[in-house]
Amino acid sequence: MRKALQPRAAVERMAPYAPPTGGRADKLRLDFNENTVGCSPKVAEFLRARISEGALATYPEYTEAKRELAAHFGVAENEMLLTNGTDEAIQVLINTFVDDRDEVVILQPSYAMYKFYAELAGANIREIAYRDGTLEFPLEELLEALLPETRAVLISNPNNPTGTAVSLSGIRQILEHAPDAAVLIDEAYFEFCGITALPLIREYPNLLVSRTFSKAYGMASMRIGCLFSAAANIAIAHKAQSPYSVNMLAALAARVAVSDSEYVGAYVREVLAARDFLYTELKRLRIPYHRSEGNFVLLRLGDRAAQVRDALCGAGVLVRDRSYEIEGCVRVTVGTRAQTERFVRELERLWR
Amino acid sequence: MRKALQPRAAVERMAPYAPPTGGRADKLRLDFNENTVGCSPKVAEFLRARISEGALATYPEYTEAKRELAAHFGVAENEMLLTNGTDEAIQVLINTFVDDRDEVVILQPSYAMYKFYAELAGANIREIAYRDGTLEFPLEELLEALLPETRAVLISNPNNPTGTAVSLSGIRQILEHAPDAAVLIDEAYFEFCGITALPLIREYPNLLVSRTFSKAYGMASMRIGCLFSAAANIAIAHKAQSPYSVNMLAALAARVAVSDSEYVGAYVREVLAARDFLYTELKRLRIPYHRSEGNFVLLRLGDRAAQVRDALCGAGVLVRDRSYEIEGCVRVTVGTRAQTERFVRELERLWR
Repeated sequence: MRKALQPRAAVERMAPYAPPTGGRADKLRLDFNENTVGCSPKVAEFLRARISEGALATYPEYTEAKRELAAHFGVAENEMLLTNGTDEAIQVLINTFVDDRDEVVILQPSYAMYKFYAELAGANIREIAYRDGTLEFPLEELLEALLPETRAVLISNPNNPTGTAVSLSGIRQILEHAPDAAVLIDEAYFEFCGITALPLIREYPNLLVSRTFSKAYGMASMRIGCLFSAAANIAIAHKAQSPYSVNMLAALAARVAVSDSEYVGAYVREVLAARDFLYTELKRLRIPYHRSEGNFVLLRLGDRAAQVRDALCGAGVLVRDRSYEIEGCVRVTVGTRAQTERFVRELERLWR
Repeated sequence: MRKALQPRAAVERMAPYAPPTGGRADKLRLDFNENTVGCSPKVAEFLRARISEGALATYPEYTEAKRELAAHFGVAENEMLLTNGTDEAIQVLINTFVDDRDEVVILQPSYAMYKFYAELAGANIREIAYRDGTLEFPLEELLEALLPETRAVLISNPNNPTGTAVSLSGIRQILEHAPDAAVLIDEAYFEFCGITALPLIREYPNLLVSRTFSKAYGMASMRIGCLFSAAANIAIAHKAQSPYSVNMLAALAARVAVSDSEYVGAYVREVLAARDFLYTELKRLRIPYHRSEGNFVLLRLGDRAAQVRDALCGAGVLVRDRSYEIEGCVRVTVGTRAQTERFVRELERLWR
């Protein structure tokens, strides 16, 4: 065998990223911040009715989906891209605005794919640490880190896994301090938090906002999200996007999903009530935790984090150990009251 | 409003790529080389049965799909990536092996996305023209263009839109002449042609082969393809791939599609017979054409190409004008005998 191909140095430097998704089917899945009940029954029903041999054979066509989603989100069609999950929104942003060795600012810890795509682009990455202990958004440190040459700032709001959010006035300060950088506010958990920077795209030409159907909407398997920005940015980002990256079933399903806002609203209310219940139970168990703006909570389990994660898995409940980025922390997705009760029951049994 | 964001120079230079996909639903679609009948009924049936609120809410999990597809294609699981259509296979290859200003060789005309992703990466692109008149694969010219610093060679075999193919011995010569380049053999139309370089991945560590479910398999709406190469290349390319780029319904559907090889085999036989019928009819009409190894044929309509395309569209039959890259040529997808008869009938009416 001859020698193997030499990859780009940027790729060689990257660590493999392989989230643990195997063997989840028969377990209580509190490990990926999914909707733990499922998508709207109307979405599933619609898809079953729309699937036909002929429809599946045709290349995607997004005109109607874009029109209806733009109307739902209150933007013009030329202020929006459909994306293959939030991941493609991040990738398109990086591909459009970030060159090799450009400066990119991200927070630490945060959603892994910001670093992934920035590394893939060969960017110089500056990581700003969340404040230890409180996990409060490090606004001053971030503002100080912004340089005239910063080309992108990637922020999840509320942030995963910290659960903490930055206020709109904080976002405005970031936008003002980085007028030449593409500032992404990733609102994957918006529905649980209620803060949105979306209306600011008309005010700040350096703002991009992303939303996803993978969390509250319960459509993670389908891969669809949206990227919003000023029309001039969307026009240029569209040039950097593959024309058929979003599958047609996802585009169709998203239209139905936004039309059933009652379903998502009811699910969000249930999660928020279950989150309060979880806080109460954690106090009772004297387990420290971080209050969260998302559908997940970080528990401070200290040295026992990985052990508790494994024992919960053995009991059929999946959670994520985040000790490698926040000392002693395990992240648990909040689902329904009944699911949260089961989690607490198993945790209590293991913890004592 | 303040000033807009400055995109990367590479993106600024790119032409927008917007294939004409609107308003195709009620027409005879001979414009995208899709399967004109549809996917296997077993695929549609399976998807309808598998769609549930809970299943849609879960992040994709590819273990089983990868196992079964690897077995079908006769490769090991670590010699294969699932990709979001062939487009993502091209993107992953470029992201893994091609840096800014690296040399990339493509043919002209060929599938538009090779140039798209090479431009997006900021590569130096060398385009080798197909031989005028015959549209024969320009093997000697390509071999001459390969430099020690060439980092990627992207070839569709058979090629779209020329319909011509390169032999396996030609592919071997390319692989021998470019030992340090990632050589992609894109086999999107393999099922209609029968030539495959796939077994050569064990022999040439610089070879990558792609396949798609968008053409013969009739699943273009779902976006799924595969990239094959030596395990060392796949391991490094996997690092450059987003972990959830392929939606779960597509991964499930692909397993069912390959299990129903009779369906695809019967469709391919029908297309090949219809292609022969089309040749006969074009001779009768004295319309010059190029013999093709794919499910499409280039017609030489001279000055009337765009006019015929428009008139056919008015009659409910969609074809693609390729005059901008091959003088006077229109490309027509070959479907069933009945569809081809309808196309010939409309063409004859317009042509006289």
